[in-house]
Amino acid sequence: METFYLKYGGTKLYFGVNAIKNLEREVSGIEHATIVTGKQSARRSGALDDIKNILKEKNIEYDIFDRIKPNPTVEMADELAEYIWKKSSDCMVAVGGGSIIDTAKVSSVIALSGGCARDYLKGKTAKRSLPLYAVNLTHGTGSEIDRFAVLTDGIHKIGISSRYPDVSIDDPRYTLTLPENQTIFTSIDAFFHAYEAVTATTSNKFVETLSIESAKLIGESLPREQTTDEKEKLLYASMIAGISLDMSPAHIVHAIEHALSGLNPELPHGCGLAIVGARSIYWIHRHSENSGKILQALLSKKIDSPEDAEKSFREFLRSVGFEETLDDYGFSRDDFRDVEKILFEDLKYFLKRVDFRFTPEMLHDVLEKSLY
Amino acid sequence: METFYLKYGGTKLYFGVNAIKNLEREVSGIEHATIVTGKQSARRSGALDDIKNILKEKNIEYDIFDRIKPNPTVEMADELAEYIWKKSSDCMVAVGGGSIIDTAKVSSVIALSGGCARDYLKGKTAKRSLPLYAVNLTHGTGSEIDRFAVLTDGIHKIGISSRYPDVSIDDPRYTLTLPENQTIFTSIDAFFHAYEAVTATTSNKFVETLSIESAKLIGESLPREQTTDEKEKLLYASMIAGISLDMSPAHIVHAIEHALSGLNPELPHGCGLAIVGARSIYWIHRHSENSGKILQALLSKKIDSPEDAEKSFREFLRSVGFEETLDDYGFSRDDFRDVEKILFEDLKYFLKRVDFRFTPEMLHDVLEKSLY
Repeated sequence: METFYLKYGGTKLYFGVNAIKNLEREVSGIEHATIVTGKQSARRSGALDDIKNILKEKNIEYDIFDRIKPNPTVEMADELAEYIWKKSSDCMVAVGGGSIIDTAKVSSVIALSGGCARDYLKGKTAKRSLPLYAVNLTHGTGSEIDRFAVLTDGIHKIGISSRYPDVSIDDPRYTLTLPENQTIFTSIDAFFHAYEAVTATTSNKFVETLSIESAKLIGESLPREQTTDEKEKLLYASMIAGISLDMSPAHIVHAIEHALSGLNPELPHGCGLAIVGARSIYWIHRHSENSGKILQALLSKKIDSPEDAEKSFREFLRSVGFEETLDDYGFSRDDFRDVEKILFEDLKYFLKRVDFRFTPEMLHDVLEKSLY
Repeated sequence: METFYLKYGGTKLYFGVNAIKNLEREVSGIEHATIVTGKQSARRSGALDDIKNILKEKNIEYDIFDRIKPNPTVEMADELAEYIWKKSSDCMVAVGGGSIIDTAKVSSVIALSGGCARDYLKGKTAKRSLPLYAVNLTHGTGSEIDRFAVLTDGIHKIGISSRYPDVSIDDPRYTLTLPENQTIFTSIDAFFHAYEAVTATTSNKFVETLSIESAKLIGESLPREQTTDEKEKLLYASMIAGISLDMSPAHIVHAIEHALSGLNPELPHGCGLAIVGARSIYWIHRHSENSGKILQALLSKKIDSPEDAEKSFREFLRSVGFEETLDDYGFSRDDFRDVEKILFEDLKYFLKRVDFRFTPEMLHDVLEKSLY
C-alpha cells in the first residue's frame, strides 16, 4: 500500500509504513514537547524511540508523561493538563490508542483555556488548545482523525466533541506488537464505528462509502495472519471508520459499552462492544436498511433477517477467536438495573441517534443474551 | 440521499438537495460580493436567483461578472481579477462548472497577491487570496473540492495547483437543467478523474476507495433517466472523484485532451476526454492493475485484456449516446504533429505521473483511433 497524506476535518494525517518520518517536518519551531503515553505500547511498538530520536535531532526538549490508563478519568486529564501547563510545553505528542489520544485532546484544551475536564464534559466551550500531534498505535480508535473524546467521571463514561488532532500519524509498523486480544478488540471497535455511523439517522452517502469499505477490509484482514500488509489494511479500515464516525456518531452499541465499562473499568472498550454487539445488531438490523449492506461487506454473505445478522456476526467473532461474555467480567443480572439507569439517564443522547425507540426491554434482552 | 457536510483539504463542502441554504450562514460579515458566472447555466438552473435572494436577505451588495466562457483564458482571469479589485469585493461567489470555478480560483489569488494569471501558471506562489464560495453546477468538474485550476494561454492549456474554494455547494437540483450532451460530457470528465487518479503512480488506498465507488455510481446512474436521485448520485460520484484527483492528479487522457482543446477551444473538455479515452485506456490498462478494478466497477463486468477494456468502454459510451470523434471537431491527421509537440513539450509533466513511458507512437495510435 502506498503512503499518503490526507487533510480531513482539522487534521493533517500521514498514513503508511514510515509515516512517522513526517513528524520531523511538522514539529519545526517547537521548543518543548510533552510526550503523553501509557506504560507499555509506546515502548514495545518502537514508536517512543522513533519519536524521541526525531525530537533529539531537531533539538526539541521533551518530557514524558506516561501515566495514562485505559478508560481514562477526568482526574487524569486534569493532572496531565496541569503537568503540561507547569512544563510550559509548546505541544503534546500523544502516543497510543484511543484512551491516550482522547485524554490528550481534553488536556490540550484545559492547558490553554483553563477550567477542568468536567467543565468541558458538561458543555464548556474550548477557547484555545495546545497543538496536538497524535501517533496512533491501534487499529481501532479513529480518534486520530475524529473530534471526539471519551472520559470517565465516577462510574460515568461521557463522550464529547472536543477537537481534532492537528497532525496524526498512522504507521502500521507500530501495530505489529499489539497483543492478539487487542488486535481483535480494536478491530471490532473500528467495525462498530463503521456500523453505528452507517445505521444512525445522521448517516449519508460518504459515510456509507467509507463504512462499507471499512467493514469489507476488516472482514478480509482480521481472520488472517497479522502481517504488516494485513495490519495496514486494518489500520486503514479503522481510519476511514473514524471519518465515518466523525460525520455520524455512534449510538446503541457504544452507549451500552460505555455504561458497562463505566461500571467496570477493567472491561476493554472493544471487548465490551464485541460482547454486546451481536444482540445489539439484532435490534438495529430490524430498523436499518444499511445494516444488511455493511454486514454483507464484513461477512461476504447476504444477510436475510435480524436473526441471521446476529447469528452470522457471532460466527464471525468465534472465527477470529473471540468468545468472551459479560460473566467473564463479573457482570450478573443484578447489574442490569444499573446499566439501564446509566443508559437511559446519562447516555440517553446516544439513543436519539437512531430512528427507532430503543427500550429498556431491548436493553435487558441484549444484556441477557450477552451474559454467558 | 441525506444532505451532508464534509471538511476536506481547505474546503467546507455542503452536499445535497437544498445545500445552497447553507450559503446564508457562510456569507455572514460580507459587505460586497462578486458573483462570477457564464451566460446561461447559472440563470437556467435557478442557482443565480437563489444566490441573489440570499445576498439580498443578508443585505450584501453584489455585482455580477458573467463573461466566463468554456476553456477560459489567462486574459479572462486577469480581467476578472481587475474587476474584483476595482469593486473592492470581500469575496467571490463562483457559480458554474469547472471553467468558472477554475477562473475564480486564479482571480481570487491575483486580486490580493497581485501579478497576472500567467505568473501563477509559471509557478509564482500565492501570498493571499480572496474568500471564494463555489456553487457547482455540473457533475464533472471536481473543482469545488480540489485545489486545481486549468487556464488557456494561447494554444496552451495549463493546469496548476492553485487553491481550494473556502466553501462549496453541491446542490443536485441545479444539474437537472444540464443539456443532455453536457450530462454525458461532465460525467465522463468525472470518470476520468477517478480513472486517472487510481492509475497514477500517486494513487493510494483512499484514492482507490473513492475512485472505484465513483466509477460504480457513474456506471449505474449515467445510463438512466436523469431524475434528481440519479443527478445526486452523479454529483456525489463527481465530488469524490474530485478528492481522488486532488490526492493523485490526472495524466495521459487529460493531457491529450488539454492539447486538443488548446488547439480547438470549441471542443468541450469532457467530450474530448470521451473521444480519446477509449484508446488511451487501452495503453494505460496494459500497465495498471487498478485499471481493471475501476473499469469493472464502471461496467459491472470483468475486463480480461487491454483490447476488452477499450472495446467495453466504447460500448459504454455508445450505450449512453456518445458517438463523437476528432473529425467532428475539425481535427485531421495534419494536426497530430501539433498535438505531439504540445504534449511532449508543454504538458510532459502530466506524463510523468504514470509508471510507463507514454511514447509519441502511442499518442499517434490514440489519435488515429479517435479520428472517425
